[in-house]
Amino acid sequence: MASTSSLALSQALLARALSHHGSDQRVSLPAFSGLKSTGPRAASSSRRRAGPTRHRDTRPVIRAAAVETIDTTTEASVVEKSINTIRFLAIDAVQKANSGHPGLPMGCAPMGHILYDEVMRYNPKNPYWFNRDRFVLSAGHGCMLQYALLHLAGYDSVKEEDLKNFRQWGSRTPGHPENFETPGIEVTTGPLGQGIANGVGLALAERHLAARFNKPDSEIVDHYTYVILGDGCQMEGISNEACSLAGHWGLGKLIAFYDDNHISIDGDTEIAFTENVDQRFEALGWHVIWVKNGNTGYDEIRAAIKEAKAVKDKPTLIKVTTTIGFGSPNKANSYSVHGSALGEKEVEATRKNLGWPYEPLHVPDDVKSHWSRHTPEGAALEADWNAKFAEYEKKYPEEAAELKAIITGELPSGWEKALPTYTPESPGDATRNLSQQCLNALANVVPGFLGGSADLASSNMTLLKMFGDFQKGTPEERNLRFGVREHGMGAICNGITLHSPGLIPYCATFFVFTDYMRAAMRISALSEAGVIYVMTHDSIGLGEDGPTHQPVEHLVSFRAMPNILMFRPADGNETAGAYKIAVSKRKTPSVLALSRQKLPQLPGTSIEGVEKGGYTISDNSSGNKPDVILIGTGSELEIAAKAAEELRKEGKAVRVVSFVCWELFAEQSDAYKESVLPSDVSARVSIEAGSTFGWEKVVGSKGKAIGIDSFGASAPAGLLYKEFGITVDAVIAAAKALI
Amino acid sequence: MASTSSLALSQALLARALSHHGSDQRVSLPAFSGLKSTGPRAASSSRRRAGPTRHRDTRPVIRAAAVETIDTTTEASVVEKSINTIRFLAIDAVQKANSGHPGLPMGCAPMGHILYDEVMRYNPKNPYWFNRDRFVLSAGHGCMLQYALLHLAGYDSVKEEDLKNFRQWGSRTPGHPENFETPGIEVTTGPLGQGIANGVGLALAERHLAARFNKPDSEIVDHYTYVILGDGCQMEGISNEACSLAGHWGLGKLIAFYDDNHISIDGDTEIAFTENVDQRFEALGWHVIWVKNGNTGYDEIRAAIKEAKAVKDKPTLIKVTTTIGFGSPNKANSYSVHGSALGEKEVEATRKNLGWPYEPLHVPDDVKSHWSRHTPEGAALEADWNAKFAEYEKKYPEEAAELKAIITGELPSGWEKALPTYTPESPGDATRNLSQQCLNALANVVPGFLGGSADLASSNMTLLKMFGDFQKGTPEERNLRFGVREHGMGAICNGITLHSPGLIPYCATFFVFTDYMRAAMRISALSEAGVIYVMTHDSIGLGEDGPTHQPVEHLVSFRAMPNILMFRPADGNETAGAYKIAVSKRKTPSVLALSRQKLPQLPGTSIEGVEKGGYTISDNSSGNKPDVILIGTGSELEIAAKAAEELRKEGKAVRVVSFVCWELFAEQSDAYKESVLPSDVSARVSIEAGSTFGWEKVVGSKGKAIGIDSFGASAPAGLLYKEFGITVDAVIAAAKALI
Repeated sequence: MASTSSLALSQALLARALSHHGSDQRVSLPAFSGLKSTGPRAASSSRRRAGPTRHRDTRPVIRAAAVETIDTTTEASVVEKSINTIRFLAIDAVQKANSGHPGLPMGCAPMGHILYDEVMRYNPKNPYWFNRDRFVLSAGHGCMLQYALLHLAGYDSVKEEDLKNFRQWGSRTPGHPENFETPGIEVTTGPLGQGIANGVGLALAERHLAARFNKPDSEIVDHYTYVILGDGCQMEGISNEACSLAGHWGLGKLIAFYDDNHISIDGDTEIAFTENVDQRFEALGWHVIWVKNGNTGYDEIRAAIKEAKAVKDKPTLIKVTTTIGFGSPNKANSYSVHGSALGEKEVEATRKNLGWPYEPLHVPDDVKSHWSRHTPEGAALEADWNAKFAEYEKKYPEEAAELKAIITGELPSGWEKALPTYTPESPGDATRNLSQQCLNALANVVPGFLGGSADLASSNMTLLKMFGDFQKGTPEERNLRFGVREHGMGAICNGITLHSPGLIPYCATFFVFTDYMRAAMRISALSEAGVIYVMTHDSIGLGEDGPTHQPVEHLVSFRAMPNILMFRPADGNETAGAYKIAVSKRKTPSVLALSRQKLPQLPGTSIEGVEKGGYTISDNSSGNKPDVILIGTGSELEIAAKAAEELRKEGKAVRVVSFVCWELFAEQSDAYKESVLPSDVSARVSIEAGSTFGWEKVVGSKGKAIGIDSFGASAPAGLLYKEFGITVDAVIAAAKALI
Repeated sequence: MASTSSLALSQALLARALSHHGSDQRVSLPAFSGLKSTGPRAASSSRRRAGPTRHRDTRPVIRAAAVETIDTTTEASVVEKSINTIRFLAIDAVQKANSGHPGLPMGCAPMGHILYDEVMRYNPKNPYWFNRDRFVLSAGHGCMLQYALLHLAGYDSVKEEDLKNFRQWGSRTPGHPENFETPGIEVTTGPLGQGIANGVGLALAERHLAARFNKPDSEIVDHYTYVILGDGCQMEGISNEACSLAGHWGLGKLIAFYDDNHISIDGDTEIAFTENVDQRFEALGWHVIWVKNGNTGYDEIRAAIKEAKAVKDKPTLIKVTTTIGFGSPNKANSYSVHGSALGEKEVEATRKNLGWPYEPLHVPDDVKSHWSRHTPEGAALEADWNAKFAEYEKKYPEEAAELKAIITGELPSGWEKALPTYTPESPGDATRNLSQQCLNALANVVPGFLGGSADLASSNMTLLKMFGDFQKGTPEERNLRFGVREHGMGAICNGITLHSPGLIPYCATFFVFTDYMRAAMRISALSEAGVIYVMTHDSIGLGEDGPTHQPVEHLVSFRAMPNILMFRPADGNETAGAYKIAVSKRKTPSVLALSRQKLPQLPGTSIEGVEKGGYTISDNSSGNKPDVILIGTGSELEIAAKAAEELRKEGKAVRVVSFVCWELFAEQSDAYKESVLPSDVSARVSIEAGSTFGWEKVVGSKGKAIGIDSFGASAPAGLLYKEFGITVDAVIAAAKALI
């Protein structure tokens, strides 16, 4: 086996004496933690530690550089042992769960060790320390690598108990890395390609904040983003999108390790993946380094990282050729080690092969002792930074306040007053234009507000007029130009928002093209990343572009997705209301479906109404007993209102309800719901230029849902509305049939 | 302006005398048209011509090569005039509609002209002639280019009247190319990147069929696939996925023109797209040629095509540098010409600039006359091929019959008998495994059945055991290896199925990853491409991989999508039933959601039942009056059946309904629906391990829908079912509360 011979080689390579790295150092706990709104669902122990510190004014005695150096002075035997510890934590946890992916951790243990033990700067006792280096395991199935590293590094989120509960109900070590379950995990990965795109977002955030806040005498923002991605991530289109942008933007502090192991689930990558990855990344504007022996060439890995750091104007891809399942005598370098437990026999054989006499999930004392320094060193790093920040704050109080707001996620008091409001006399406009007024108003008051469009800025109306473009030479600016890369855009925004609680990215395309980025949007929802999705051209109302561009089923598809708010505002007040909630909900992404066509400012709409999800905008009935309730969303609320006018002229008692956000309405009290949709009133008509799927819940079995259950067509918008029966007359006819 | 000077250059370049291309040739109509199942929604005139011919046994007098040559002998002035005709047809049609994208047609008119007039082999009077060259406008917004070319070439689908109705209701010239509206359009494009991926599918189909059916003495399958794609397509991840595969497969007859005009909607591509595209494509295994003057360098374009054809083992990218809006003195080379009418003034200025004295939408007589030869030549090409096929049929009757079935889409009689059936005594199995039995059974009897997985063949269970892998060296095989490229996979399958009515591709991944490929799936639905989507691991039942891998809202999202069948079979008979419909519905794609976990063969399930979409599998009531109706799908039908057993023990009259495909149930008569779900019975409980969104329609406002409206979790499947309340007990409790 290649694995055993390369193992011998590794021993030979590292047979030199290096002196031990001291760990007897004073602890300094963080003064300023930035924990406010990024904690996991369950309160974690690290979170509880976030109070005022004991050493607020103590300057740290340990300098960050002590940890950063990659010219390690650690004894080779400890390195080897630590790497094997990582391997066996993965092997044993997967074996115990009888489920999981041991192959990647076994192959990537060397780079993982070097990153977490020798290179990265972090504070294990405060996983949310702002200036930490970020690490993303884009090949998320190999999560035991990361759990093992967090465990060794001293994170409280991954105790021995947690390793024993790998992939079990309620554990903090789920089957793929989940930021909302495990402090220390930056982003949620597993769906391939997402992680590297998240990494681009994290690196973008660092670059932007550094450009905005660093001073010649204080680099207050200064950290790296490291990613490990595999062959699967490389094949996914999203990674090419995001990496093309990373190259364009010149994100020099993004360093990605490509675990080049030649094996994917279907076998050797020869069967489907024979492109020249190095050359592709060069074409994308990356610096590319090849580490030929990723199994045991530790110094090669160290040198590559050093070189990568020296290249400041380009992201770096370090292609690390490894053996999947390294150390397993019978399964290494094969698909069988990718996604299943090794089996007891092979675990035993691997123990023998790697000379590992320990019990399952055991961390040898010398390894434990070696890693123990990260707790004091991490605390020192943070304390050091806190002291630096205190100085910065004195010199640059304004910038410090802004940066602090971005770090903590605290919004400036009264920010929401910046949102525009409208009266029925205000000029009518497309909600995409009204959205731009909101975006610009928000960017004026919310320091971490930034975003852009996938090459549709002038159609989505997303430009921030007071800022320029975020570009290689102007990273302090806030207009992001994503190009036609919807999927990458969504995942990059996930990275941005998960970088710091106060970074609030929005991104935009036509609503129908959420289909291109849905996987990233679902991860926003799952990973509690409050990205704002500005989705214009939200129905057949876009007209001539035709059915390829006209969303039909998209509203439904997001209403059914957990933890995402689907807004369809009808006018200016409702657009402002949607933004008010979207900005304040930092753990829930929002989708705003906006019109291309001009709409009137309707009487009765309000920001407060939007906060309820569904509310009455007009009513001429009494005693909560209208003859009929007309329910609309977005551009069709106007049609409902017009139909109501006509019906009222005929003496009917008609209520018009805006159903702008189903999810928020569902959260209201039964009494409120009853006040809007009284159960006694079964005469209900809904109108929405989209699929009627699901509207039975609102209109009831006797009501009528007007919508479009086929694809649209290419023609002027007005005619389409008529041809598809989305008209005042249709509402009136339906209402009369029910009264 | 660059445009005017380059115009002068073009005149200079082409100032040489070339003799006119003759067009007085005998017409021979097709003997064998292959039209059976590919017509557009409305019967087209070309379709009506598909009957028996007048010249069945006449050998053609014109050889195909006469049209194929790119050493054109056409007079330069006619070429120039033809190219300007294309430009002005686009300019004028967009101006008349006051909507559309003139910029691309103005820049790409030269390559368009050369392709349709000098290079491509087609029969305008039979757009479905099997051995035609395929053309895909991946940058679909430039559709007026293609409409102009189809018009000039003599396609009956684009008459002058149709150009006048560009982007109008009911026209055959919608805002983006739609194969189902306009004969001559191969695939539906507009959403960027889809077209180039479709092109890979078309070229794959050609290569596969050529490998299977060509004989040393008869190249019966022999045509090219040409694609024009723009900067937008290049930025989309899907294009990188598909092009990586095209390079891997060595699809030498795929020739893509990259309209390198440096402008996208947001302005100069410098703001977001600075990668080295040539280098990237070389890395992907393509042959790359750069045509530096795409505006007027006609011979450069011709030479590039010649070179591309000579490279047989690699696809070719011809980067053609053009000026968007070429000829417009004030708008060329700017975003403003991309997506709006030029405006009357600028139309006038462009007329002057290009020396175009004609009325709007006028085709000058000499241009008309020049293009008129394509009607007889196209007929001759087809007749030639038909004669060749007749010979082939004599020599190779078996192969000819198979190829004919692929061309016409006619399924062998009794094919459905190959599908396995099961009794309750048959061993239980995961529906993904039962699916593999169906796939292998179908591949034995359906000659055009082929497909594969996005690197999950051994998890999706999609390998055809009697075939090898479709690879560069073995293109006659039928297992497609897509790598981890879901989006590209979907779009490639759209291309395969739209290549020939009898090609029936299936493709596979985990159900949750439909999110990666949804845009391609929507185009399957819209463009009537009957792709079969084999989607396994369809719920929390997949267990430990956790919420990133567990679909929740996905069933809903497809039930709401027009023209796609969402199946969730419960066992072997239902899986076979789903395949029976999926294979027979050639104009509607099907999605099969299949379990990872083992399921029993249930009494009462049947293929016939599946054909109804919803049906009773067991009932102990009489008079269509059960006490309660339990409704399940897929893996939860077993739970409903078990709950019914328990309730019946307590003396209840319980009906169990399988609701395997909502769309098919919706198509049934009211009487049938009433027989399954009698309106008098409001006690209804549904159970499905997915979002309950939309189930109100089935269970009614008094019924109860059991499901999961949050994300899942990482744990063993059995425990997840318990924790999320998807249990027999929950069904019993809900039923009792309703009875």
